[in-house]
Amino acid sequence: MDYRIEKDTMGEVKVPAHVYWGAQTQRSIENFKIAQDINKMPKEIIAAFAYLKKAAALANLELGALPQEKSDLIGKACDEILAGKLDDQFPLVVWQTGSGTQSNMNVNEVVAYRAHVMTGGSLTDKDKALHPNDDVNKSQSSNDTFPTAMHIAAYKMLLETTIPGIEKLRDTLAAKSKEFMQVVKIGRTHFMDATPLTLGQEFSGYVSQLNHGLKAIKNTLEHLTELALGGTAVGTGINTPKGYSEVVARKIAELTGLPFVTAENKFEALAAHDAIVEAHGALKTVAVSLMKIANDIRMLSSGPRSGIGEIFIPDNEPGSSIMPGKVNPTQCEALTMIAAQVLGNDVTINIGGANGHFELNVFKPVMIANFLHSARLIGEGCVSFNDKCAVGIEPLHENIKKHVDNSLMLVTALNTKIGYYKAAEIAQTAHKEGTTLKEMAIKLGYLTAAEFDEWVVPAKMVGDI
Amino acid sequence: MDYRIEKDTMGEVKVPAHVYWGAQTQRSIENFKIAQDINKMPKEIIAAFAYLKKAAALANLELGALPQEKSDLIGKACDEILAGKLDDQFPLVVWQTGSGTQSNMNVNEVVAYRAHVMTGGSLTDKDKALHPNDDVNKSQSSNDTFPTAMHIAAYKMLLETTIPGIEKLRDTLAAKSKEFMQVVKIGRTHFMDATPLTLGQEFSGYVSQLNHGLKAIKNTLEHLTELALGGTAVGTGINTPKGYSEVVARKIAELTGLPFVTAENKFEALAAHDAIVEAHGALKTVAVSLMKIANDIRMLSSGPRSGIGEIFIPDNEPGSSIMPGKVNPTQCEALTMIAAQVLGNDVTINIGGANGHFELNVFKPVMIANFLHSARLIGEGCVSFNDKCAVGIEPLHENIKKHVDNSLMLVTALNTKIGYYKAAEIAQTAHKEGTTLKEMAIKLGYLTAAEFDEWVVPAKMVGDI
Amino acid sequence: MDYRIEKDTMGEVKVPAHVYWGAQTQRSIENFKIAQDINKMPKEIIAAFAYLKKAAALANLELGALPQEKSDLIGKACDEILAGKLDDQFPLVVWQTGSGTQSNMNVNEVVAYRAHVMTGGSLTDKDKALHPNDDVNKSQSSNDTFPTAMHIAAYKMLLETTIPGIEKLRDTLAAKSKEFMQVVKIGRTHFMDATPLTLGQEFSGYVSQLNHGLKAIKNTLEHLTELALGGTAVGTGINTPKGYSEVVARKIAELTGLPFVTAENKFEALAAHDAIVEAHGALKTVAVSLMKIANDIRMLSSGPRSGIGEIFIPDNEPGSSIMPGKVNPTQCEALTMIAAQVLGNDVTINIGGANGHFELNVFKPVMIANFLHSARLIGEGCVSFNDKCAVGIEPLHENIKKHVDNSLMLVTALNTKIGYYKAAEIAQTAHKEGTTLKEMAIKLGYLTAAEFDEWVVPAKMVGDI
Amino acid sequence: MDYRIEKDTMGEVKVPAHVYWGAQTQRSIENFKIAQDINKMPKEIIAAFAYLKKAAALANLELGALPQEKSDLIGKACDEILAGKLDDQFPLVVWQTGSGTQSNMNVNEVVAYRAHVMTGGSLTDKDKALHPNDDVNKSQSSNDTFPTAMHIAAYKMLLETTIPGIEKLRDTLAAKSKEFMQVVKIGRTHFMDATPLTLGQEFSGYVSQLNHGLKAIKNTLEHLTELALGGTAVGTGINTPKGYSEVVARKIAELTGLPFVTAENKFEALAAHDAIVEAHGALKTVAVSLMKIANDIRMLSSGPRSGIGEIFIPDNEPGSSIMPGKVNPTQCEALTMIAAQVLGNDVTINIGGANGHFELNVFKPVMIANFLHSARLIGEGCVSFNDKCAVGIEPLHENIKKHVDNSLMLVTALNTKIGYYKAAEIAQTAHKEGTTLKEMAIKLGYLTAAEFDEWVVPAKMVGDI
Repeated sequence: MDYRIEKDTMGEVKVPAHVYWGAQTQRSIENFKIAQDINKMPKEIIAAFAYLKKAAALANLELGALPQEKSDLIGKACDEILAGKLDDQFPLVVWQTGSGTQSNMNVNEVVAYRAHVMTGGSLTDKDKALHPNDDVNKSQSSNDTFPTAMHIAAYKMLLETTIPGIEKLRDTLAAKSKEFMQVVKIGRTHFMDATPLTLGQEFSGYVSQLNHGLKAIKNTLEHLTELALGGTAVGTGINTPKGYSEVVARKIAELTGLPFVTAENKFEALAAHDAIVEAHGALKTVAVSLMKIANDIRMLSSGPRSGIGEIFIPDNEPGSSIMPGKVNPTQCEALTMIAAQVLGNDVTINIGGANGHFELNVFKPVMIANFLHSARLIGEGCVSFNDKCAVGIEPLHENIKKHVDNSLMLVTALNTKIGYYKAAEIAQTAHKEGTTLKEMAIKLGYLTAAEFDEWVVPAKMVGDI
Repeated sequence: MDYRIEKDTMGEVKVPAHVYWGAQTQRSIENFKIAQDINKMPKEIIAAFAYLKKAAALANLELGALPQEKSDLIGKACDEILAGKLDDQFPLVVWQTGSGTQSNMNVNEVVAYRAHVMTGGSLTDKDKALHPNDDVNKSQSSNDTFPTAMHIAAYKMLLETTIPGIEKLRDTLAAKSKEFMQVVKIGRTHFMDATPLTLGQEFSGYVSQLNHGLKAIKNTLEHLTELALGGTAVGTGINTPKGYSEVVARKIAELTGLPFVTAENKFEALAAHDAIVEAHGALKTVAVSLMKIANDIRMLSSGPRSGIGEIFIPDNEPGSSIMPGKVNPTQCEALTMIAAQVLGNDVTINIGGANGHFELNVFKPVMIANFLHSARLIGEGCVSFNDKCAVGIEPLHENIKKHVDNSLMLVTALNTKIGYYKAAEIAQTAHKEGTTLKEMAIKLGYLTAAEFDEWVVPAKMVGDI
Repeated sequence: MDYRIEKDTMGEVKVPAHVYWGAQTQRSIENFKIAQDINKMPKEIIAAFAYLKKAAALANLELGALPQEKSDLIGKACDEILAGKLDDQFPLVVWQTGSGTQSNMNVNEVVAYRAHVMTGGSLTDKDKALHPNDDVNKSQSSNDTFPTAMHIAAYKMLLETTIPGIEKLRDTLAAKSKEFMQVVKIGRTHFMDATPLTLGQEFSGYVSQLNHGLKAIKNTLEHLTELALGGTAVGTGINTPKGYSEVVARKIAELTGLPFVTAENKFEALAAHDAIVEAHGALKTVAVSLMKIANDIRMLSSGPRSGIGEIFIPDNEPGSSIMPGKVNPTQCEALTMIAAQVLGNDVTINIGGANGHFELNVFKPVMIANFLHSARLIGEGCVSFNDKCAVGIEPLHENIKKHVDNSLMLVTALNTKIGYYKAAEIAQTAHKEGTTLKEMAIKLGYLTAAEFDEWVVPAKMVGDI
Repeated sequence: MDYRIEKDTMGEVKVPAHVYWGAQTQRSIENFKIAQDINKMPKEIIAAFAYLKKAAALANLELGALPQEKSDLIGKACDEILAGKLDDQFPLVVWQTGSGTQSNMNVNEVVAYRAHVMTGGSLTDKDKALHPNDDVNKSQSSNDTFPTAMHIAAYKMLLETTIPGIEKLRDTLAAKSKEFMQVVKIGRTHFMDATPLTLGQEFSGYVSQLNHGLKAIKNTLEHLTELALGGTAVGTGINTPKGYSEVVARKIAELTGLPFVTAENKFEALAAHDAIVEAHGALKTVAVSLMKIANDIRMLSSGPRSGIGEIFIPDNEPGSSIMPGKVNPTQCEALTMIAAQVLGNDVTINIGGANGHFELNVFKPVMIANFLHSARLIGEGCVSFNDKCAVGIEPLHENIKKHVDNSLMLVTALNTKIGYYKAAEIAQTAHKEGTTLKEMAIKLGYLTAAEFDEWVVPAKMVGDI
């Protein structure tokens, strides 16, 4: 392979001739040969860096710390990153230094060298239009840029993917709930037959779960709006111009259109990532909800002939390579696997968050990689589940009616008429002898047929709808 | 042992002669011989049941479903439970039915039988003043009472123990932060020497973490104010009088003095415990913060002669059974063990929360036991850590000064004067040759002694204080 | 309260007059007011300490480091602990120093003072027959005694409670598997109808899971036989007589009747508890198995009329406080709650295990408390599930037959006769039109009635039994 | 894009014209638009499928169920997969059906169509040389092939990557331990100064941890050798020729050179993945060990001037984008991030493993993806840590000597001479007054200078080396 020689403070490094990255990126490739094909630093982090590098250049310009020309150049290179033109210039993986320094330097190098080339320069020129550290990284440290990129990427993902995905599913389930509100069916508690409710009521519980989950996520957004930028090395803001923190946060807010502000306390912002831990706590709550919902739907649709079979879900693909004609609740399965993943990611994030020391948490890359993974899986998982499953759910009225008509738990309606103990006797004896409740109620002499017909009416047992 | 015969719908059971509980409690003792000496149903749940049984009786009275006399009797027995007079009447463990039915019946039986005895009756009377199911449990089901008790107990614990405990520690750390605000010390990132900050700044990060944690907990309180009561068996509210849900929630709010309301959606309230999952997500965030803080403090106090030794923490007890005179950061250790416990409890709660089916989640007891455990450990752990450690923290000025004076990272102040690369050369060469920065800076000819003294001043490197 | 004055190296402490513990125990009570009523140091750890203190006294005697009289006295006091006579003398909680020093000193003090009283002395005597540090703790440190107690307690619990509990359940399920081996039933994959198997085959999977789980536990026992004792303060064995490690391990093996040996590497034995982490990894595997088994059994027994209803499980108690006659799979619920607890405990143990530093892990108490909790819950949970549920499982032949006869997946038998695609067409069309497979197979002209009857025979589709 | 029409039992699908996959793969791409760029089905699973499809073809041939020509064709296509020639033909992600059916069909389709093209046919031919279901999938089901692929891939990864990686690091640490065996240094317990040991002893603990970890992994291998293949749809082996299970396992063993056998119980093998859960339990144990080791090494190397600074680790890259000359323990950071990831993956695997139902566990893809991730991260992480950090570790003798000479805990050597209490007085007073132990020992009159020099010798306090 053709290469060129790059230098950093530690000496010379051979770099592929035509890449925009420099010595420090190359060192990281060589020093961290760990899962390089599957664990790239998330692209959302690279994009977030592009926003913040441009914002820093603009802030440095506004505060007189960087000339217009350099600021513009940085901005242009960042725009190319945001446009996806330099996607192949960010080869580093999550498994690097825990501060993300190497990814920060990867961006610094690519911006500096790409900008130099944009001005007509060559990658082998000794002096370049921009210096990765002194210009692109001006008024910054990895220690404040990386956590800033974490918050930008996390916030954007939640807003653009996670929340809309959940809302889409919530809306579909809400429509189904309304549509099915009069469909009286048997309730099940402990997996056992219980008193009736309507299918719409059952679905309303899912809607309520997702609404609470959305609220939980939104409650955590404010902490994520706080940006570390301006704290530099240890939180004191060394080597930043006066007023920089506020200006750069404003620039990021403008560029992203999101309500970012400078963190009130920069020492926390570098040394801890409780905002990520907290927000993922909301994501895991949603994962818990999705597990419940997807489990219910696969169980309700189970059968076709030997299961519960109370709802129909769409047939999307042949379900079995050996059993002809089999169709399976595959979207439910993908969604519950996602829930399991998110619940594991939560533990990784907790451990990372708990193990910061002194002025810096050095589990940054693993924390944000897991966070973005979860946030995306939930968002895209909800859309997939919605589009390929939830929208097509229909009641199977015949089965629903059969189950509710046979239920022994309709006896509960008699508690207030004849007391719990006599009602229990009716149900237990009917169960033992295989009769209907009505037959047994009359046989035991506790009420008349007319009374039974008046008192035991499933549709009256479901409360106000 | 003396016993009497009790009956339920399944038949006769021998019960110790003088206990207030009845057949169903006794069945549970015999059916669940699992960790009976260490995993009692939390006492906070029993107290919560006392509140709700009394509230239900009052609501039933107001709505004409229960006569004054019975309502009063129930209230009196519940008052005895709240006063702690019946503590030995609740022998059941967490490992029972997942709906907590047996604990609900334990309370129903104790209230009914104790009330009967209060009226002058005997435990062996066939007819009693109150019936456990038909009176004490009127307009209720285990399925709505147990989750109601979960929310009451969780909310009270957070408000009375967890939040005040965290606030106490936060206040102490805030005072220390203010007190230490001028103490310039070396920063540490990656466990390595970095640019300076003040000890007060370092502590301000801890304060900010706890403030964010408190906010995270408070964000979750609203979901916990929603009570399931009124949903009865499956969420439809079967066998409740009209308006009951609102009235009984108001009664609970009055009795507890807390802002409880009836849950908007009862189907969720029985079938899912996302409020518990979400609120514990905030608790695990605080656990993560406490792990960071306690780790920092034990490391900063490490030594006395071969560690970092920048702060003093109180000596509370001899630290070693073999090493004379040794003192250890034992409060830090208890607090980090607590953090580990809370992070494990979180997983238990997630798994429980994710595995509800249809109209009921049947991991209720394990979820609330773990929640209350965490909430209490954090609250009491913070108080212990505060009283026995944090309040006594003092800077060890001699060590602090030595560390900051020796630091090579003061070179960072030169970035904006001579550029990153030359600054790096100074630091690296000084490190290699064991000199001071100043000596090396002059030797390399990058700046004069006067420039060094003007530019490299630790106290000027800590930003605005 | 009456008290006496005790002294340690830090000064005087008031201690209740009649307790056997001394200054250091009392300090711990006062310094760690955290969950004191619910998180006592497990009694199994106290018992393990009694074994090891006695063993150390015997080893010291054998090696000439302690006179016969003192050794005998220590042994006698330890015997009283093992006999349960001093249970109220160990008031300390898990939330103490992470080395367990205070519990070690609690035992040292109780042994020393109780022994002194046994010789006719008084608790207020200034000079006592034994000194807690110099005699009872001779040739020991908390740092090697506590991990030794951890291994003794863990090993004993696994052997006496966990393994026998699992084996008991395994034996019952194996007997049921044999008994039900000819009961042909429908299979279910993805919760959907699949090809048939027998109920005995289904249960044989559970047996195989538990057999593998038992093997997994047994694989971890060897690591647990390694004892830290002899490492003293940091693993070097300072202040121990020559040969002590081997002798004391032999003494412990003799006293307990278990194959304990001295750890090959004492530095690991103090600084890490991977043996606990590893063994709990086996316990969590069993928890995973139990969750599967208990879930299957509650789903198979679901109904009675609107569920799967293929097996009967015993009715142990009324299932509902509101729904008369309801019976629930409560043992399944307790067991799955236990599984959730164990999976959470696993995380606590992992975090504790990962956070040892240098020569000592200081998450010892929380690790062993969680380990013993899990080991006991699994053992006692299996016994409860066995005795109150598994032994009473019976097939419900009528439902089983109905399900298998209706199944569309019997069509799989035709793959090798007419190919997957035609078989799929038969199943799909039969499903759509609500016919039997046979009717549709003939209608579509792919085979004759005779061929169908010959080829599609559930009992021939279950393989060799 | 050019496309062709493919058909399955559900109808027609447009497929890109030149790909080898067919209708079912295409449906999965369209039905599961979830993280498609980052969560591909692991390549190790595809390779494992190639082994097993070839083995199945050979077994079918041997048992007369498939003609030689078809068997050969399948083998040739599989060889191309194994040679990496068809890597771009497997576009599916982890988030699909939980049985992995779609990846099984992806392989079936690619093998069938590639083979057809190899014979000179065209992708648009209606009749092809092989049928995906009837030939390539003959005597198989997704339900037994996917778990078989899981075990093949897991076993190979452990053997080829994980174990060698750990062994490499273990060997380096063992060599370092030997090399440093005479380097006396201070011990640290509770992060506090303790009695001395040698650096080699300290490292021997790490070696012992890894040895135990290797043993733990190896203990779990046997369960992984059990293959599900032959169980087909539900474990009964429907549609397999007699003797097939044993033959196909033998073929796989021959092709892979690994000791695979047919699972004794196929019902477990489909419905549960305890072997994966158990083996990952060993991996998490190693993760716990690595967290400890990497933490120790970063702390021991902390400084350069204000930390512990007892060892040197290699400088691999500039450590800071803002602090010139800073070098950080980046390999330690990558390794501890890996440990955090593995501990989270463990929870995902546990949840997946616990939630199988009836005859099939449908968390297969997420379980194996997390397993392979962990196994690879540990293996490659150990190699990276070894090559770029461990091999270069050297003692910093000057600091080591300073620390041990200053230590107050050398007083422990006096316990057996003057008793614990007097020794404590010496240490405490020396600490308070800032003197050496020797000065204070003499001042307090407890021993002479000569006695001190004879009794307190660090090198004699480290035991037998």
